[in-house]
Amino acid sequence: MTKRTIVIVGGALSGPTAAARAREVDEHARILLIERNAHVSYAVGGLAYHLSGEVKALADLDSQRSDFFASVYGVEVWTGAEATALDAPARVLTVQRGGERTTVPYDALVFALGAASPVPDVPGLSGKNVRTFRTLADLAALKKALAGSGRRVAVLGGGSMGVEAADGLVRAKAKVTLVERHQRLLPQLGTQVARHAEAALAARARVILGAEVIGAESARGKVRRLHLSNGTKLEVAAVVIAAGLSPRTELLEAAGAVLAPDRTVLVDALARTSLPHVWACGVCVSVPSAVTGRPVWSAQGALADKTAQVAGANAAGAQVRLGAAAETMLVRVLDTVVGRTGLSAAQARAHVGVDAEVTTIHAPSHDPWFPGADDVLVELVWNRHSGRLLGAECAGRSGVDKRIDVAAAAIAGGLTVDQLAEVDLGYAPPFSAARDPINVAATVAAAHWREWVRSIGAEQLAKLAPTFQLVDVRGSKQHRAGTIAGAVHLPLEALRERVGELDRKRPTVAFCDSGRRGYLAARLLQQRGLTDVRYLGGGLASWQLVGQPLVRERAR
Amino acid sequence: MTKRTIVIVGGALSGPTAAARAREVDEHARILLIERNAHVSYAVGGLAYHLSGEVKALADLDSQRSDFFASVYGVEVWTGAEATALDAPARVLTVQRGGERTTVPYDALVFALGAASPVPDVPGLSGKNVRTFRTLADLAALKKALAGSGRRVAVLGGGSMGVEAADGLVRAKAKVTLVERHQRLLPQLGTQVARHAEAALAARARVILGAEVIGAESARGKVRRLHLSNGTKLEVAAVVIAAGLSPRTELLEAAGAVLAPDRTVLVDALARTSLPHVWACGVCVSVPSAVTGRPVWSAQGALADKTAQVAGANAAGAQVRLGAAAETMLVRVLDTVVGRTGLSAAQARAHVGVDAEVTTIHAPSHDPWFPGADDVLVELVWNRHSGRLLGAECAGRSGVDKRIDVAAAAIAGGLTVDQLAEVDLGYAPPFSAARDPINVAATVAAAHWREWVRSIGAEQLAKLAPTFQLVDVRGSKQHRAGTIAGAVHLPLEALRERVGELDRKRPTVAFCDSGRRGYLAARLLQQRGLTDVRYLGGGLASWQLVGQPLVRERAR
Repeated sequence: MTKRTIVIVGGALSGPTAAARAREVDEHARILLIERNAHVSYAVGGLAYHLSGEVKALADLDSQRSDFFASVYGVEVWTGAEATALDAPARVLTVQRGGERTTVPYDALVFALGAASPVPDVPGLSGKNVRTFRTLADLAALKKALAGSGRRVAVLGGGSMGVEAADGLVRAKAKVTLVERHQRLLPQLGTQVARHAEAALAARARVILGAEVIGAESARGKVRRLHLSNGTKLEVAAVVIAAGLSPRTELLEAAGAVLAPDRTVLVDALARTSLPHVWACGVCVSVPSAVTGRPVWSAQGALADKTAQVAGANAAGAQVRLGAAAETMLVRVLDTVVGRTGLSAAQARAHVGVDAEVTTIHAPSHDPWFPGADDVLVELVWNRHSGRLLGAECAGRSGVDKRIDVAAAAIAGGLTVDQLAEVDLGYAPPFSAARDPINVAATVAAAHWREWVRSIGAEQLAKLAPTFQLVDVRGSKQHRAGTIAGAVHLPLEALRERVGELDRKRPTVAFCDSGRRGYLAARLLQQRGLTDVRYLGGGLASWQLVGQPLVRERAR
Repeated sequence: MTKRTIVIVGGALSGPTAAARAREVDEHARILLIERNAHVSYAVGGLAYHLSGEVKALADLDSQRSDFFASVYGVEVWTGAEATALDAPARVLTVQRGGERTTVPYDALVFALGAASPVPDVPGLSGKNVRTFRTLADLAALKKALAGSGRRVAVLGGGSMGVEAADGLVRAKAKVTLVERHQRLLPQLGTQVARHAEAALAARARVILGAEVIGAESARGKVRRLHLSNGTKLEVAAVVIAAGLSPRTELLEAAGAVLAPDRTVLVDALARTSLPHVWACGVCVSVPSAVTGRPVWSAQGALADKTAQVAGANAAGAQVRLGAAAETMLVRVLDTVVGRTGLSAAQARAHVGVDAEVTTIHAPSHDPWFPGADDVLVELVWNRHSGRLLGAECAGRSGVDKRIDVAAAAIAGGLTVDQLAEVDLGYAPPFSAARDPINVAATVAAAHWREWVRSIGAEQLAKLAPTFQLVDVRGSKQHRAGTIAGAVHLPLEALRERVGELDRKRPTVAFCDSGRRGYLAARLLQQRGLTDVRYLGGGLASWQLVGQPLVRERAR
């Protein structure tokens, strides 16, 4: 048997995974891993948790894993080596190593160079205390900067990397200001879930939205003050750059590979690039979406792992297919967790148009009488025509990861919302309620789908409120604390007696705090002769999450 | 419109749920709920958690919910009323209420009387301190008995109710002895997961298997000592009876309804009994299984809730179908959680025969470098012919509920193990690993399905061990601590060099602690010329869970 040579370019997370998988497939190949830095590292996903102090010895763990990797898989590792040119038709990689240029002929090449964190082009924004958030060296520099006086840190960027960094820094007792140029955090998430995350972060850090850094003042090699576009000046001991990711695909582009407009390399379900004998994986690739089939870039660790396994196996001769990417994402934001899977409402509307419906509920993470129970927000995106689940988002203090994963499995299985409503999920009081929030959300969605009870979303009601007869069906105490301007107050308990006080012909929206009483009221009112009734999905919790105000009114 | 009368018999959890759902469907019906006890109660699922001290005021919460229920849903509630006879053709229920007999004509009847906890027929086994574990009154009596001297409690029965009670009692600082007549706990679970639960309980309580109570000694109206069939005598301050459930179906049986051999009432997917205009729900019914379609009895709260919703809606005129029951179960056992969904290995073998395969892995609940990570056992049951997931079990200290629910959704969607391996689950270090244990288990199952690497289960290897060449591929330190008798020690790191020491023609099993290194070794060895190689699924962790010993041997 001729011994094949498989070269893996990139040694963070995906490269070693691809190498290991290639070894599983081909025990006899020469497998060569090429990494620019001084050691093969697995750390990227752990930086924020080391910064926070929760993980004590990330570097130690990494070097152990690195040794295990080399000895168990029999992979040749070149560290301090950089791939500088690729001749795909000739199957030759040029590598700069220890001042020398080497050419490496290969049979198969796996490209796994990941992505860089670009530094914004702002005059003066550089110094020992200005770091991206990608390597152990970044972390060491940040810790050093924070050990000095001040402990004020600016995090530039409100995507998942910026939010994770802010979470870790707050836990490390830094005084954090996060600056994001858009009006919201976490652009992959819907408005309500993103606002949930924002509120959790703003409780323990300063969050500045709609502004960006336009200048920096330095002293003794360190940036000391940032100037923002909104006129704010920030004193800083350190600056963390987390303003997006830039795929490291220059080498592939120069070799003629087809890139997406976002500069990721397009791969197919076999993780092949457009170049012969070249596979790619990790956070530098776009993969086919689970729902739309179109290429999507989802720079998440779990997907990076999956592409790495497929690229490694296939480079070694297998024909493994990539499962479709659901763009699943999970971010811890201090006491809160937010996540998504499948299509967001915005993606669904772009893809399936008006047939995309969104159902939002707030329900207890587990039996409300068991300690630690707290409402989770569950948002389901589904197809009005087929009833199929397209996506889900979730936010709350506990059990968010579970509901996201259940939704991911449900999407993979093509479940409709009424099937999801009936899935027999596990019940024990510390973990769920007899009717799990996922079952509740799907039940409510199915009621809408079957035209049993219609809801209206908070964002839509915000635009249309004056056209509706609004009915607050909560108790008096809740009503007194604040309601929607112009709403009538008729508690659910009294609704049967007092239904005559309402205009039966007028389009009506019933609402409460979470959506549950509103749902019951809508069902009651439509059976008591009102011709056009809906309820506010997610209730006033959702109304406030989309930025709408409450007013104090006297009861009628 | 003629006003219909819907009568609900039984007021614990399922009856009120059915009544509420009936009200949603029919705003105008008279809905009458009949309950034997003094108040409508929701407490059954919360008893263990109140006993433990984690839930402070279960009774208060319940009465609040009861008031809310009556006022919001407009349901007429008769407490202290017992249904004594049913004439289904005439649609008349006879009720004993406050010393008087009343007949109640109805249009639809929902039967939700639940199940009783039968007291074993043992001479002397009764007294103020001998209680079942079904009501708030039971709980009050137990607390009173425990407030006295001793704090020794015997729990009779090792099913989920007995284990839950033992968990609550240990947390309440009682000295617990659990007595189960079979040789294992939790009969619904497979051997390995049940042993996991047993170990967790035995760490903080006395667990006596294979014995039952044959006599009891009393003093002043209280049982003071139990005599067991194995000769053991137990001093007790209280006795908790949790020896199975007996469905309260006498009334239906007398009325001519078809019961299952286990005395549950058979209902169809519309929750209809065999009697006209009579529906049934809760823990007294058998429902069609998700996987086999055959009736199954799964006395779990979540399923009780689902049947109640369907029965209530349909009694009020809807045509809602029950989702298939997956017999999902989740039990907390002190620091451990165990669960199942779908078919167990035993059920699958009975149903699909030799085509049922079982894959067992142990993998970290989340990134091993993040605090609190601990191996979870995941066992997948799948169809060797179609690759479809049939069932799953899980045990561990964290994240068990999540993996069970993901499997439940995957079964509902008909996923194959290779599809499940690729489901894009959420990753963040506190909650999962880049490759979630569910993905890992499904990857390993798929490798077996595709005949890529074959495993052998611990129970099977225990029977066949002498026929195999056994290879311990762990490090020297682990090997010295104990291995399988007769095994060769060849660490994975040295396997490539030392493969010549093995007999290539002999059927071989490679093993390690968890299964991972064994898997890699098997793949390596079959590519290095061994003709028949497997690895021990779940490694020595599973080997020990099925009760097999380790021996100390010198390295060759």
